[in-house]
Amino acid sequence: MKIGIIFGGKSFEHEISIVSAIAMKKVLKSDLVYIFCDYSRDFYLVPTDKINAKRFSSGDYKKDKKLTLKNGGFFHKSMMSEKRVEFDFALNISHGADGEDGKFASMLEFFNIPFIGPRVEASVISYNKLFTKLYAKEFGIKTLDYKILDKNSSRDIELVYPIIIKPTRLGSSIGISIVKSKDELEYALDVAFEFDTQVLIEPFVKEIKEYNLAGCKTDQYRFSIIEEPQKEEFLDFDKKYLDFSRTKRVNEAKLSREIIEKIQNSFKKLYEPLFRGSLIRCDFFVVDEEVYINEINPVPGSMANYLFDDFDSIICELSKFLPKQTRVITKYKYIDSINAAKGK
Amino acid sequence: MKIGIIFGGKSFEHEISIVSAIAMKKVLKSDLVYIFCDYSRDFYLVPTDKINAKRFSSGDYKKDKKLTLKNGGFFHKSMMSEKRVEFDFALNISHGADGEDGKFASMLEFFNIPFIGPRVEASVISYNKLFTKLYAKEFGIKTLDYKILDKNSSRDIELVYPIIIKPTRLGSSIGISIVKSKDELEYALDVAFEFDTQVLIEPFVKEIKEYNLAGCKTDQYRFSIIEEPQKEEFLDFDKKYLDFSRTKRVNEAKLSREIIEKIQNSFKKLYEPLFRGSLIRCDFFVVDEEVYINEINPVPGSMANYLFDDFDSIICELSKFLPKQTRVITKYKYIDSINAAKGK
Repeated sequence: MKIGIIFGGKSFEHEISIVSAIAMKKVLKSDLVYIFCDYSRDFYLVPTDKINAKRFSSGDYKKDKKLTLKNGGFFHKSMMSEKRVEFDFALNISHGADGEDGKFASMLEFFNIPFIGPRVEASVISYNKLFTKLYAKEFGIKTLDYKILDKNSSRDIELVYPIIIKPTRLGSSIGISIVKSKDELEYALDVAFEFDTQVLIEPFVKEIKEYNLAGCKTDQYRFSIIEEPQKEEFLDFDKKYLDFSRTKRVNEAKLSREIIEKIQNSFKKLYEPLFRGSLIRCDFFVVDEEVYINEINPVPGSMANYLFDDFDSIICELSKFLPKQTRVITKYKYIDSINAAKGK
Repeated sequence: MKIGIIFGGKSFEHEISIVSAIAMKKVLKSDLVYIFCDYSRDFYLVPTDKINAKRFSSGDYKKDKKLTLKNGGFFHKSMMSEKRVEFDFALNISHGADGEDGKFASMLEFFNIPFIGPRVEASVISYNKLFTKLYAKEFGIKTLDYKILDKNSSRDIELVYPIIIKPTRLGSSIGISIVKSKDELEYALDVAFEFDTQVLIEPFVKEIKEYNLAGCKTDQYRFSIIEEPQKEEFLDFDKKYLDFSRTKRVNEAKLSREIIEKIQNSFKKLYEPLFRGSLIRCDFFVVDEEVYINEINPVPGSMANYLFDDFDSIICELSKFLPKQTRVITKYKYIDSINAAKGK
């Protein structure tokens, strides 16, 4: 198998996407080709042996072949003609905007490139934390209470502290603050509104139990182990940045059979059919034996490889179960019949 | 102003998009350039004087210039170089898949092309009828009750007839059936599942009052008149097909000031901030003086031009109030700091 690693993008999470992409070199046994989307949204084919962080931060990637995205794949100029970058399927490993907000999904689907990653609906529902809540509740999964606040709305709101403030549409803990009292509110809102025009406000539950489960569905569900992530008050961006380079298998959380099943069942309800074709990591809270969904990560940091026994085989198997696009009958039925009626 | 009309796409609504695009020639006074996306998802620049239905059904558009979508616009080959198709902004008038499901939105945004049309989140929320309901309810707008049924689920469900069955993700009445009794259910489900893997089942309310309101927000809300669409049991696709070519101003529905305000207020709650940058038509039901949202059309048939007094000026004004993309700081802060720490 040859896998096209697609990463980067115009996003606050551009750098951690690079870190995740580098991690793939260590954990995937398949052949890899690397397709990088820079901050200007130009695509480059970066040779696998040149994949290291400095290649990108130095701008040296601009010496590599520039690519054009077209029907059927990514192409570069070659002598008088064009040459397609060959791979069996793409792996979208771009976090945040572009990669997780529906843009990459849309383009890959539009141009008929088979890929592992969330489709456009799955992207929008998981990228927007409000939509995640609406979706989860509809399918019977609990979420923490919340309030929504728009940038231009009055900040004179009744809240019970401590609270956690999050930009509605960002991952990787960017712009998130814990607010312990009213006098910290203004500043935290200013920070969050730097990143989004809407914020989500939730109660902050100290020492809440968090459990992460990754998985996908092929002909059956393929679950990872469940991890209890180590954290300070919460994982901030610097911590998470390092976190994205994880490639070592972690220890399984010690949980009762019953809780494991509850977590796995919640995952299933969230996964299908929306997330078919993607390997996701769901971050759950457990409070009084009840499972709450915190976040759905459809392009998890380093693809959550460290939670799986045989990550490479999961990815290769998933590539055989990618959702098909709806077949469209490509005829001019109505125009032809109207023209016929008009005698044209 | 020069407007780039983007239409077509790989969709069951491909043909009605052509009809809508043709209607634009009659109702827009601005200069137009036509960018057609065919069933194979290749783009063509079709000369405005050759815009008629037969150009497309005959395949003659393939004689026109083929375009490549890239950073900054659509390009065609010109002598030894490439030439950009010039326009001030694009108008997305592709209905259904590609145009309304988030793909066009994603690509236009990714490649920095200013456009009127729903952004990716707005596309997904309005294209998926279940998501529309979740979204509307969250913002205090009533919707009819519903059940969701997946293709592989048991069809042995309790229902109170008559009901209306709709594919979750299609517009223009395609695949929709009214089912009056249990023995009609199987066939209606088979029809709907031809178009989607999930269907939405609602009670069918005979002679329900339907009202359509179109509008957008510039520096203020710009509403159309409210129309009570003429219909048989419901508008089927053949009817709607003709409907998409409407260019004549219609009569205003006779409604009390109170109901008009309720409809306009519901529109506002749905519109902002999600639909900024688009001109949408909301189809409401009114039952016992209460307003229900039935559908949000973010690329309405012929852009609902027939509901406006001065359609061209609305479109040109809206083009001055398109949402900006979030600015991303394009630095390598983390990689640089880590490399510095490593002494690289």
